[in-house]
Amino acid sequence: MIMKPRRASLQQRRKEAPNLSPLRKAEEIASTFGLEMTIADLERLFSKEAFEDHPLHRRQLMGPSPPSPGLGSSGKPLRVAYQGFRGSYCQEAASKAFSSIHCEAFPCTHMEDAFQALEDGDADRAIVPVENSIDGTIDRNFDLLLRHQRVHIIGELVLPVNHCLLSLHGTSRSDLRRVISHPQALNHCRVRLERFDHRLQIEEVPNAAEAAKYVSESKITDTAVIGSRIAAKEFGLEVLEQNFQDRSENFNRFLQLGLGVQQHQPRETTVTGGEDEDVVSKTTVAFSLEKGASDLFRAMSIFERRGISVTKVDHRPNRSNPVRVVEEKTGEHRYFDYVFILDVEEEGSTGVHEALKALKDISGFVHVLGSYTCRWRID
Amino acid sequence: MIMKPRRASLQQRRKEAPNLSPLRKAEEIASTFGLEMTIADLERLFSKEAFEDHPLHRRQLMGPSPPSPGLGSSGKPLRVAYQGFRGSYCQEAASKAFSSIHCEAFPCTHMEDAFQALEDGDADRAIVPVENSIDGTIDRNFDLLLRHQRVHIIGELVLPVNHCLLSLHGTSRSDLRRVISHPQALNHCRVRLERFDHRLQIEEVPNAAEAAKYVSESKITDTAVIGSRIAAKEFGLEVLEQNFQDRSENFNRFLQLGLGVQQHQPRETTVTGGEDEDVVSKTTVAFSLEKGASDLFRAMSIFERRGISVTKVDHRPNRSNPVRVVEEKTGEHRYFDYVFILDVEEEGSTGVHEALKALKDISGFVHVLGSYTCRWRID
Repeated sequence: MIMKPRRASLQQRRKEAPNLSPLRKAEEIASTFGLEMTIADLERLFSKEAFEDHPLHRRQLMGPSPPSPGLGSSGKPLRVAYQGFRGSYCQEAASKAFSSIHCEAFPCTHMEDAFQALEDGDADRAIVPVENSIDGTIDRNFDLLLRHQRVHIIGELVLPVNHCLLSLHGTSRSDLRRVISHPQALNHCRVRLERFDHRLQIEEVPNAAEAAKYVSESKITDTAVIGSRIAAKEFGLEVLEQNFQDRSENFNRFLQLGLGVQQHQPRETTVTGGEDEDVVSKTTVAFSLEKGASDLFRAMSIFERRGISVTKVDHRPNRSNPVRVVEEKTGEHRYFDYVFILDVEEEGSTGVHEALKALKDISGFVHVLGSYTCRWRID
Repeated sequence: MIMKPRRASLQQRRKEAPNLSPLRKAEEIASTFGLEMTIADLERLFSKEAFEDHPLHRRQLMGPSPPSPGLGSSGKPLRVAYQGFRGSYCQEAASKAFSSIHCEAFPCTHMEDAFQALEDGDADRAIVPVENSIDGTIDRNFDLLLRHQRVHIIGELVLPVNHCLLSLHGTSRSDLRRVISHPQALNHCRVRLERFDHRLQIEEVPNAAEAAKYVSESKITDTAVIGSRIAAKEFGLEVLEQNFQDRSENFNRFLQLGLGVQQHQPRETTVTGGEDEDVVSKTTVAFSLEKGASDLFRAMSIFERRGISVTKVDHRPNRSNPVRVVEEKTGEHRYFDYVFILDVEEEGSTGVHEALKALKDISGFVHVLGSYTCRWRID
């Protein structure tokens, strides 16, 4: 897998945010140099889907889609945009998803950039982080999926978090005076850090991957970074400890996105996972309700009475109509109005297709964000 | 209303975040000086509730509560913690909520600090922002309400956003070269800014209130800040334009929090609002489900079949059990598990009380976050 930097995007970011911390500024400047690298030793996952779901193969299932520049198997490589910096957990997810395919993966600083890369034809796939089992959902994905209606969820990958304690090669535990990382990662490792060495100074930084690069390039010997395994490989750091997080139920969920006209179709086959894999068929649908939020239960019952479980209910402001005025017995009331986003799960039934048709009767709009397979990588 | 700074909190913040931008650093240092101010010309709202809901008055309704230092009407003032900086929209909400009461309002930089101020007995009430009609919900409130189980929602206030273009007195439109604000505010005013003067440089800052103070104290003549009306009063700035936002459906929702043992009680009277007010009775309940997310519909039906509308469904990770393993026909599946948070609305019925009892049968835990009145300030 070849890593290709998105220099324009980084330059734009620098221009947009002139008040970066010194660490961030140094990192942003450094990140424009020499980023061509090879990533190896990564596991296959999603790869079968990556081919089957590719626009060229999906036309029959998903209707017309724009011409694709090529597949990863031969000719041009599959171009994969991942949200985050080099060395991020999202790069790790992209690598696991496409490791057996000839592909070019490149970082996109902002979530928006990954969506735009798909829209502009600069990427064939995008990988974005969507949820952590301890910290919750990143709602921004929903806003972007609603705005970029040609972009769809075509797969989901859940990976165990493996927070690693990274330092320069040759640094011993007794050399360390400081541990730095993103606040979320530090929070995941609080107890372990205290036990490791309670005298260590803990410092929050906006980006763990950037910090890892900075420690490596500046040869800082007294500081460890909590970051991904891939950051160690990318920046030549040593993994002092791995699985440094306090809790084992710590998983990250990533979405695989692609361009195409997504229509829910009845499934004919049940996808089964390999060893250490756990596979579920899901559909994510966004809709507004003509009568507002009080009709949510009615919308959910459309699925439930067909034996389809609604397993997640999210909502975002209904930007075309954020506030609704309703006449009631007690007078005129105002409500915040939402676009609801449901995850529904089926077991080989054709019910979802029927349910979506019924949902249209009570909705302002219905938009399927994706009909896809969720894979858990357990080990 | 007397503004009282929380110096310890600011100092702690400075210690915790050494990599602040120069603007922020200057602001943090400046904010430790001379902050005693009087706020006038603010409307009454919540004030009746502020008395009725005060621990001394609520004992009968809400069970035992800790001794209170006094009411705002006489003796010691009511101490109100608001989340944010001086000049923030949350200070404006606190002022509107308690303007007719003798009270001391003080800023808390972090959301957590406002909750802790209640727990420590440093505040009688807290006001926190919880939702914007265009940008969505701040989920962090739920985590804090779940962690601080003695803190409850005792009121809700929705206010129209009034983004003002603020500058030094005497600055004319033609002097301006730059407009700065928080990214959210800039986004709300994008079209209007473009029409106002498309040549203006737009710059994002982490905090609009801090920026307003900086512009005032540093006497910067070429820069306007998009901020609140209260920021103009606090820092002696001129309101060049008001209601500068692109859309009129732009409202902020704030929660009023207090300490007490909250139990849902059947309502005997219907609260009615004054002129320009719109009043709804709500209960917010958090619960986990013994069978996991697939039972959410069942939980909702407990309310719906009693004629109680579920108007909002939120979820946060179930931190006591973030990942659930379920045996199904197709094998072993893993799910992210959640604490669900429902807003339910009743019209003078006693159904909620009954529904909460029934919910316990299918839940790991049920915790009422608050049973309260939502007031919209429409004008």
